[in-house]
Amino acid sequence: MIGIFDSGLGGLTALKELKEILPGEDMVYFGDTGRVPYGTKSRETIVRYALQDVRFLRGFSPEAILVACGTVSSGAMKELRESFDFPIIGVVEATARSAANVTKNGKIGVIGTSATIRSGSYTTQLKKINPDLEITEKACPLFVSLVESGFITDGDEVTRLTCERYLAPIREAGCDTLILGCTHYPIIAHEISKALPGVTLISSGKEGALMLREILEKNELKGRGNGKINYYVSDDPEGFSQNAHIFLGDNIGGDVKVVDIEKY
Amino acid sequence: MIGIFDSGLGGLTALKELKEILPGEDMVYFGDTGRVPYGTKSRETIVRYALQDVRFLRGFSPEAILVACGTVSSGAMKELRESFDFPIIGVVEATARSAANVTKNGKIGVIGTSATIRSGSYTTQLKKINPDLEITEKACPLFVSLVESGFITDGDEVTRLTCERYLAPIREAGCDTLILGCTHYPIIAHEISKALPGVTLISSGKEGALMLREILEKNELKGRGNGKINYYVSDDPEGFSQNAHIFLGDNIGGDVKVVDIEKY
Repeated sequence: MIGIFDSGLGGLTALKELKEILPGEDMVYFGDTGRVPYGTKSRETIVRYALQDVRFLRGFSPEAILVACGTVSSGAMKELRESFDFPIIGVVEATARSAANVTKNGKIGVIGTSATIRSGSYTTQLKKINPDLEITEKACPLFVSLVESGFITDGDEVTRLTCERYLAPIREAGCDTLILGCTHYPIIAHEISKALPGVTLISSGKEGALMLREILEKNELKGRGNGKINYYVSDDPEGFSQNAHIFLGDNIGGDVKVVDIEKY
Repeated sequence: MIGIFDSGLGGLTALKELKEILPGEDMVYFGDTGRVPYGTKSRETIVRYALQDVRFLRGFSPEAILVACGTVSSGAMKELRESFDFPIIGVVEATARSAANVTKNGKIGVIGTSATIRSGSYTTQLKKINPDLEITEKACPLFVSLVESGFITDGDEVTRLTCERYLAPIREAGCDTLILGCTHYPIIAHEISKALPGVTLISSGKEGALMLREILEKNELKGRGNGKINYYVSDDPEGFSQNAHIFLGDNIGGDVKVVDIEKY
């Protein structure tokens, strides 16, 4: 089975992609809804939470794990890979590779949580691919809360204004490509695009899902399940069930169980 | 000493009041910055977190504890009072009493986090004081994040628009008094007032502080310290030190220590 986790519901945008490109796999999704958000917290706390999340998923004997959280992918991959012996795929590497391929003028913007941008993970990864790329990074700490508070309607004035404010440096830098470095952000892509007309958006959840498929194929680990998906959260399962469709584009079609993540 | 805690930095607005009205007391502030926010989480999770917070503060032998968190005051006071034998003061009771005194037309608005409004705690308390009061409650889930993301300048357009949207039902109901049922909200009182001209704002942190003083005086527990304040957080102390002045109106003037709150 494939394990996938995020601080909350945002990772469901990556799960949506996984369901489409790997319909036959069993998957376990864990959303750390009791401790969301991660992106405003310190690296030490993020590492501690991420290790607990993967320890929990390890109990299902995963073939591989997708870290569907830009914050964890930016700040805790080293610790995760040192602690576990199955493949763990973060979204940063996959997304950087795709953005470097897509850009025509070599100017790439990166938006993410405070922790993701503070880490400089995307710039490091992009410069490894091509040191001549010009990168403009911008933390957008309010975006996760806007999405989780439901300010997601096309044309929402609060979200539009927030996008304009946050994204001005990306526009001024002349970027032709923008990395959505947080799996919550595709939900407000409509407003992000309005603030940055003509800019290609690269979704980290989608790129992470594609890289996970590659890894499974390379290691001949594909096709071992029946397409069953199980959901676990660290807080109220009802709230999760009610809001999941916003991210998944569909109902979850199954049970959500609660896990005491602090025990792991 | 007096113990005081909140999910994050908002409770510092209550500490500011305490410092003014009880300058001679020793105080210990705990901000659960590793798990902030509480207001979007389930009651079960909030109760568990609140019990841990008070267990930590118990180690300092408090004369009394102020729950400077509207969410905990709304949903976990029963459990806290059953578990500890020192006085624990929540902000709901104090704030409701003040609002009921202040209103002239008997129409009171209440704003708070999703968890606070879901609990109906303010309406219950206000109706106990006067069953004829007309109460309009409105959850404002984005406000804590707006404050913690720094959208707090006078005239901030995003905050202004969010206030207009959230506060329309309060205006339409003709309330003359509004309870700020979350200790973060005084920081954006300037925009809240613009959306509700002529409405008297009642700050839960201030009312909680006044009630705490009453309890200390009644129990002859006042004046046992030297005005020393110690700060503890569950995440990065540096981030706390940097942002505390926004809430405290002053630098903290002391060390901030980290505590592993999950051990309590």
